[in-house]
Amino acid sequence: MVSNPQRREQLADAGLRVLARSGARGLTHRAVDQAAGVPAGTASNYFRSRDALLGGLGERIFQRLTPDPDVLNELGAREPSMELFVDYIRDLVRRLSGAPDLIRALIELRLEGARRPQLGDILSATLHRGFRNDVLFHEASGLAGGAFEIALLHYALDGLMLDLLTTSIGAEVDVDDVVRAFVTRLVASHDAT
Amino acid sequence: MVSNPQRREQLADAGLRVLARSGARGLTHRAVDQAAGVPAGTASNYFRSRDALLGGLGERIFQRLTPDPDVLNELGAREPSMELFVDYIRDLVRRLSGAPDLIRALIELRLEGARRPQLGDILSATLHRGFRNDVLFHEASGLAGGAFEIALLHYALDGLMLDLLTTSIGAEVDVDDVVRAFVTRLVASHDAT
Repeated sequence: MVSNPQRREQLADAGLRVLARSGARGLTHRAVDQAAGVPAGTASNYFRSRDALLGGLGERIFQRLTPDPDVLNELGAREPSMELFVDYIRDLVRRLSGAPDLIRALIELRLEGARRPQLGDILSATLHRGFRNDVLFHEASGLAGGAFEIALLHYALDGLMLDLLTTSIGAEVDVDDVVRAFVTRLVASHDAT
Repeated sequence: MVSNPQRREQLADAGLRVLARSGARGLTHRAVDQAAGVPAGTASNYFRSRDALLGGLGERIFQRLTPDPDVLNELGAREPSMELFVDYIRDLVRRLSGAPDLIRALIELRLEGARRPQLGDILSATLHRGFRNDVLFHEASGLAGGAFEIALLHYALDGLMLDLLTTSIGAEVDVDDVVRAFVTRLVASHDAT
């Protein structure tokens, strides 16, 4: 009975709306049922504990942030180069900026994961997998840089998204310029370490 | 009567403990009074609205993160160089890592500032001032880089702290190496733009 993937996604999306509106503390199975317009008890069938629910939201965020296949195809048709990499990361930043609730929810979950070890474990597994995939993808691309450079880029972009989607430090800079600087200065012209 | 700065700091520190434990939604004047062990109504005397209270916590975080004068004196006695800058930022990252509750609270506040425009305004003013001071400090140092480079470094370090103090992406890197790479790649050898 607990095996309908669409229903699971529908519940996770409702959970993300609750999280964006009320923060991690407002997220209960009951609130998810209400937001999804399903009978009470449905969310508990799909996510057995609160940590499982929160962890499921983390997974769903990554699922929803998967790049558009058309964009990937277009990029894949071009010769690998640092310019291509800059364009790819610019597209990523545009995509993340267009989903502010998802990114804020992910930050909420990361904070909550530091407070709740069981959620921390579930969410860590999702984040680690994402990072490892990025490293593999980058290595396959044949561009400069290795795992260390990809970690630097991850941190830098996470901080940029924090600034763009929460209260900003107010530096008057162009986002495209920032992305170019991160990619070219942190990754390009640095051999894998 | 509402003019005792020590009392104000005591209340703000109690508020930061509440924030770390319960998140922004758990923060009420009443909870702050209880955590500070003061009569009900005290916090309301010092912070008239919930946004004023949250904004006051933001200010208090920056106050408490001010560098140790001894460290500043020691750094100030050395010849300005990129190595000095690396040491300065390493000291900063160590200091921030040693105050996980403050940094997590600041991230909570930034998220909450995106949801509540009045808090957003108060907190923005604090963050903007911090950023402008960092730019002035850097320009006075005579090192390479300008406001753009300091913005890049801010984003990068914010993302690093997010990783260190919340759920990590699990890159197995040495924090000192990351700091060196951020400073030397993002700031050094780039003229002010």
